[in-house]
Amino acid sequence: MTVTMELDELLRLALFEDIGSGDATTLSIIPPDLEGCAVVFGREPFVLSGSKPFRRIFELLDPEIGIKCPFPDGERIEPNVAIFRLEGRARSLLTGERTALNFAQRLSGIATLTRKMSHAVAGTGCQLLDTRKTTPLWRSLEKEAVRHGGGRNHRFGLADGILVKDNHIAAAGGIKEAVRRAREGAPHTLRIEIEVENVGQFAEAVAAGADIVLLDNFTLDMLKEAVEIGKGRVLLEASGGVSLETVRAIAQTGVDFVSCGALTHSARAIDLTMEFSV
Amino acid sequence: MTVTMELDELLRLALFEDIGSGDATTLSIIPPDLEGCAVVFGREPFVLSGSKPFRRIFELLDPEIGIKCPFPDGERIEPNVAIFRLEGRARSLLTGERTALNFAQRLSGIATLTRKMSHAVAGTGCQLLDTRKTTPLWRSLEKEAVRHGGGRNHRFGLADGILVKDNHIAAAGGIKEAVRRAREGAPHTLRIEIEVENVGQFAEAVAAGADIVLLDNFTLDMLKEAVEIGKGRVLLEASGGVSLETVRAIAQTGVDFVSCGALTHSARAIDLTMEFSV
Amino acid sequence: MTVTMELDELLRLALFEDIGSGDATTLSIIPPDLEGCAVVFGREPFVLSGSKPFRRIFELLDPEIGIKCPFPDGERIEPNVAIFRLEGRARSLLTGERTALNFAQRLSGIATLTRKMSHAVAGTGCQLLDTRKTTPLWRSLEKEAVRHGGGRNHRFGLADGILVKDNHIAAAGGIKEAVRRAREGAPHTLRIEIEVENVGQFAEAVAAGADIVLLDNFTLDMLKEAVEIGKGRVLLEASGGVSLETVRAIAQTGVDFVSCGALTHSARAIDLTMEFSV
Amino acid sequence: MTVTMELDELLRLALFEDIGSGDATTLSIIPPDLEGCAVVFGREPFVLSGSKPFRRIFELLDPEIGIKCPFPDGERIEPNVAIFRLEGRARSLLTGERTALNFAQRLSGIATLTRKMSHAVAGTGCQLLDTRKTTPLWRSLEKEAVRHGGGRNHRFGLADGILVKDNHIAAAGGIKEAVRRAREGAPHTLRIEIEVENVGQFAEAVAAGADIVLLDNFTLDMLKEAVEIGKGRVLLEASGGVSLETVRAIAQTGVDFVSCGALTHSARAIDLTMEFSV
Amino acid sequence: MTVTMELDELLRLALFEDIGSGDATTLSIIPPDLEGCAVVFGREPFVLSGSKPFRRIFELLDPEIGIKCPFPDGERIEPNVAIFRLEGRARSLLTGERTALNFAQRLSGIATLTRKMSHAVAGTGCQLLDTRKTTPLWRSLEKEAVRHGGGRNHRFGLADGILVKDNHIAAAGGIKEAVRRAREGAPHTLRIEIEVENVGQFAEAVAAGADIVLLDNFTLDMLKEAVEIGKGRVLLEASGGVSLETVRAIAQTGVDFVSCGALTHSARAIDLTMEFSV
Amino acid sequence: MTVTMELDELLRLALFEDIGSGDATTLSIIPPDLEGCAVVFGREPFVLSGSKPFRRIFELLDPEIGIKCPFPDGERIEPNVAIFRLEGRARSLLTGERTALNFAQRLSGIATLTRKMSHAVAGTGCQLLDTRKTTPLWRSLEKEAVRHGGGRNHRFGLADGILVKDNHIAAAGGIKEAVRRAREGAPHTLRIEIEVENVGQFAEAVAAGADIVLLDNFTLDMLKEAVEIGKGRVLLEASGGVSLETVRAIAQTGVDFVSCGALTHSARAIDLTMEFSV
Repeated sequence: MTVTMELDELLRLALFEDIGSGDATTLSIIPPDLEGCAVVFGREPFVLSGSKPFRRIFELLDPEIGIKCPFPDGERIEPNVAIFRLEGRARSLLTGERTALNFAQRLSGIATLTRKMSHAVAGTGCQLLDTRKTTPLWRSLEKEAVRHGGGRNHRFGLADGILVKDNHIAAAGGIKEAVRRAREGAPHTLRIEIEVENVGQFAEAVAAGADIVLLDNFTLDMLKEAVEIGKGRVLLEASGGVSLETVRAIAQTGVDFVSCGALTHSARAIDLTMEFSV
Repeated sequence: MTVTMELDELLRLALFEDIGSGDATTLSIIPPDLEGCAVVFGREPFVLSGSKPFRRIFELLDPEIGIKCPFPDGERIEPNVAIFRLEGRARSLLTGERTALNFAQRLSGIATLTRKMSHAVAGTGCQLLDTRKTTPLWRSLEKEAVRHGGGRNHRFGLADGILVKDNHIAAAGGIKEAVRRAREGAPHTLRIEIEVENVGQFAEAVAAGADIVLLDNFTLDMLKEAVEIGKGRVLLEASGGVSLETVRAIAQTGVDFVSCGALTHSARAIDLTMEFSV
Repeated sequence: MTVTMELDELLRLALFEDIGSGDATTLSIIPPDLEGCAVVFGREPFVLSGSKPFRRIFELLDPEIGIKCPFPDGERIEPNVAIFRLEGRARSLLTGERTALNFAQRLSGIATLTRKMSHAVAGTGCQLLDTRKTTPLWRSLEKEAVRHGGGRNHRFGLADGILVKDNHIAAAGGIKEAVRRAREGAPHTLRIEIEVENVGQFAEAVAAGADIVLLDNFTLDMLKEAVEIGKGRVLLEASGGVSLETVRAIAQTGVDFVSCGALTHSARAIDLTMEFSV
Repeated sequence: MTVTMELDELLRLALFEDIGSGDATTLSIIPPDLEGCAVVFGREPFVLSGSKPFRRIFELLDPEIGIKCPFPDGERIEPNVAIFRLEGRARSLLTGERTALNFAQRLSGIATLTRKMSHAVAGTGCQLLDTRKTTPLWRSLEKEAVRHGGGRNHRFGLADGILVKDNHIAAAGGIKEAVRRAREGAPHTLRIEIEVENVGQFAEAVAAGADIVLLDNFTLDMLKEAVEIGKGRVLLEASGGVSLETVRAIAQTGVDFVSCGALTHSARAIDLTMEFSV
Repeated sequence: MTVTMELDELLRLALFEDIGSGDATTLSIIPPDLEGCAVVFGREPFVLSGSKPFRRIFELLDPEIGIKCPFPDGERIEPNVAIFRLEGRARSLLTGERTALNFAQRLSGIATLTRKMSHAVAGTGCQLLDTRKTTPLWRSLEKEAVRHGGGRNHRFGLADGILVKDNHIAAAGGIKEAVRRAREGAPHTLRIEIEVENVGQFAEAVAAGADIVLLDNFTLDMLKEAVEIGKGRVLLEASGGVSLETVRAIAQTGVDFVSCGALTHSARAIDLTMEFSV
Repeated sequence: MTVTMELDELLRLALFEDIGSGDATTLSIIPPDLEGCAVVFGREPFVLSGSKPFRRIFELLDPEIGIKCPFPDGERIEPNVAIFRLEGRARSLLTGERTALNFAQRLSGIATLTRKMSHAVAGTGCQLLDTRKTTPLWRSLEKEAVRHGGGRNHRFGLADGILVKDNHIAAAGGIKEAVRRAREGAPHTLRIEIEVENVGQFAEAVAAGADIVLLDNFTLDMLKEAVEIGKGRVLLEASGGVSLETVRAIAQTGVDFVSCGALTHSARAIDLTMEFSV
């Protein structure tokens, strides 16, 4: 629900970024009272996400525009199938077009990539997670797109999870001491996750009482060894080198989670088009 | 210069998005007075962009952090070469790491892709342009990254250029009428650009007095025909189906500009890493 | 449309500026449930502008107030003719009165002065332009008032037009070089305008390829000479010493535009009054 | 001191209003590292005001610009005398010029008009006051300009004074009742001022216990009669029809204050110029 | 009315403070379409205040929630009597609960304490005032709660009243000089109040022409002496050591006002509970 | 570190709330260039908190003020001992006084109450926790004050902990189902806490796999029974009816935590005074 509140502010800024002191083309060419309608569709198959910001962009620009979204987010859409139908003032439709599409094309890109990867791990019992490698100011939207694609969210940010990484361990002077300090000083409502780089560190983390261990850049054999040692005692999360090609094998090692930054930082935008008619 | 002012606001929001009510890991594990240093490098070759937001993230978080950026934006960087060196409070370095990297990895991705495409058109006399298909709220940064990559910017937004697209033509009732209205009603300080889909429309646009014509999805033969008809009378811009593979052939037809949305909406993030030591 | 969004923010700040911690007079004297009505009229003839902010001030203050604006902006209004009729809570009417009038009196002042000057150039083929000498934070409203008065807008700000002035020429080292740099470095969607102070500079600007030339403080004879040289090759804009007395003669020289800063920086406010009755 | 804090926000918005997505002229024509200097002077005699926002505009735009303001606000300045000397990056000087001048020209216009009117009442013992007829969002600056011109400020807004006007009296059902309610319900830290339109109402207001009476549109004879009745028992303030021609005669009737809306709503801007050199 | 505008902003920030990146409990446990209802009641008798922010919290979170508030603010409420009845989406009811209660429990605490103290002075002719010792950012709400409890408000802040305290007197060099300067330099719409610490200073303040005198930490005998000297010539306000035990005796000395900081800075929160059912 | 950024915004708003359009007393009485110094002390023993906002209020108001804070937050302070020493412009010292004190008096009140209660549980092995019953917009500051008093913080808000309360259980249809859903749907980085009202529910929660159980309004005997059943298997937190009188006995039952809302919602403000001298 917060998201809704924040969303309006982000969308207003996005509209202003594009419109600036006014849409010179539309204001000079399109009569103020001309009405029209528009449909939006993709030119490739994709998983829909971003229909909330798409719709809201137009509502903020012109509350009298009518918008229909026949599909829920998370739905797989065929090419040339209308995902939005709009009608109202031509000026508003044309002025809002690009900003609205910029949201939908990026978020649908994330949902589509996530869907492919979550299909790849289906049936293994391993869950696909995102990371904090998101586009600044878009984290809520991008994490929602990951859910639309069938992924699960890791912690939202630095406040709702403890993740002790290599740099923290270096600063704290070792795994054992890092876990001890986190147990003592961090909110008792948070689990403690620790990132390790080899099986020795993994064993150390389990012994230190970590709740979750992040196995970074482990080979498949190392992952299997970690699963053997720790499954059931700690939650296991694999990361590093995760791609459509590698993800299933990683999942099949028995880890509980596999996390992948590319879901949010390198998904290709979906090619969406809006077609207007009077 | 405006960018600098806006930038701070965007960066503060980005920091808050990640930090929320506090960095639970760092606050519990790292002593407040521990000092350290860190270096940032890529694991692949890339063109640097985003050093301004990277540096500023840390300045906003902790003004006492020292940051050195030995390379200017736009520089080609080899793997494992330090692009940033930081020193100061360990807590600040670790808390700002992810947000700062999120900026640099995305913007360097755009600069790197742009560099590849601008190299592909080098020597043809054709200039590579970006579009308005940018990440909302990042337009200034992304258009700057395009410049770092050797591209040139198209209009910033709806206010500083007139671009009459298919939807506008449909609403205005034809190319001739659209140009007439723009000439009469739009600021006299703006040129008039019109998007066309075939050679007949192109001739119509030239006759109507357009200053620039955007040739959308033209084949190479159609582009050549348009160049023959219009070169010197109007500026010619090609778009649609532009990729690393196709861009040089398009440029060689003699068009003045080639514009490409993928530069900003689908560049892959560069793999950057920060290494901390006490 | 952006204007509407910004407008609300500006109006809220304006209301707060006046109301502060509360309207001590109204809160102590007027019962909360007292209803009343009010009419607003001028004590002199004028051209109406500012009915949008006037109406919106009351809508923001109290959404239940009913407001009727029988005349469109741009209409010429006789003294003592009601331009707004309001009804609703007496407290809201009295608390909003001054702020709403402050907007309407100033903007109608600008529209009225512009109307007089645009009438003065009627039939000459020359168009009356405003400048960037506006009241900071009021530019959208003031430029709209100029249109209500029958004037045309010059560029909105520094981003949507290139205007090379004497100071720029000094910094660039000459007219020719300034135009060359602008042609190379500025967005190709913008025309290039250059300000000149004598006929020699004018010829230089035309030769350098300027699209528009601003003839600053030219005598009538100099203007005529410039028109002879440049008409049809460049657009000509006269400025400096433009007043109700001089504007027609300037327009009759054949220049395309005459621009006048006094329209926005020195228009006298219209004397408007609100009369309340229970 | 609040003013200083608010001022920065207002100035940032003013800069952004003008600069938008970037100063196309300066960015394309002026090299980033070119340094220069500039002087600002008027082309007519005037009273200086607005040097604080003028200076601050440049400080916000570029903290490395050096600015000297040899005269304090409130000083009378001869034509062609430098009131500001600036040096620093040419881009910053040229980009900030218009916005900074827009503040100084308007505020100096107010100070100059106020100085003329306050000179006109000098020696009469009557003080010149401003009103709430200010430019929304500029009230602090404009009331300060009135002080620079030698005027005194009336209440800042609706919260720091009680002024019962004709519309309030109509809503409250009479002068006596209005004063009674204000005495009972308003903060005991505020005096009660009441506006009257004739001598009968004036006597009624005095009898009701008003602290200050505003004599609106009284003739000189009516003013004298009111002074005879009320001087020493209430403070007397005259308003309506106050101009450079009439103000001294009004002041000589013996009223304590004369207030004038034109000081802030209709002062003519001073013609200021900035001259740049490398 | 301003309060309403500010209130929304304050409440949005309050919601965001609690919700952050999302209500993890509700989002995981409660289905999005589950509807329910809730009642809120106290576990002790109290005077109601804060029903406006309570209601508005839920309206901002979810406009479809229905809320009934059977009692007006200022009403005395028995334990276990429902003061709010809500129905709508279970998620919204549960997510907004704590923030809404945090407002109502604190403001009702202030109203309840104020009611006790205002009852204590009933019939004495002395009025109970609050102070500026409020919770920053809550002043409007807390001063309203004081009115709900039957108290009267002192000045809102530093702008709508002159209160010369010991520190000001020290800086101005004496009571007489302080009053003289205030009379000359402060807005003529404000009364002048001066704080004194003994009867000698009191006499000095009266002689200097103060309008109101604040008698700080006077004994009952000193208060009586001041009343004898000054009653009718100045308004008298007692402060310091004011509690439920002492307030009546102070009021009976004949002072016009007694002011008490504890009303707003140390009132105990009322124990309020929300009970949800499907 | 976020806190610092947010803090400035909160403090600016707090200053503006008090100062409004200007400090009428100080501006009229105190010369702008008068310098002075001031000391702040309490009139009772207390534990210091809030020195950061106290200091920052003055820094924001006037960067040239010098402030010394000889004691760290969390220190126990005797009456009449100077906790802050300031020097600088008299106007700034006097204008900022009340707002700065309003922060320090409230936060020191919370730290002082917390210190008393944490002393009461010292040596029992049980830790004292705060709750979300904080003053909206003050949560960061108040939770920090709790730490200064020797308490530990419960979750910051709804995002960084799962706490299933009676209302959630009602909506989810039982304890077992609620825990199951939380385990499945909530971020795996969060522990699951569940509130129970009797021993039967407690056993159910333990069986369902809760990580932490909140024992609400348990008698001492019930607490002991729960400790016997669950100690070592789950973390135990007691709440309800916690006061200085009862807290030690509760802690001695063996629960891990005792949480108390009164720490933040009903602490009495400390009586602090600022004394100015020229």
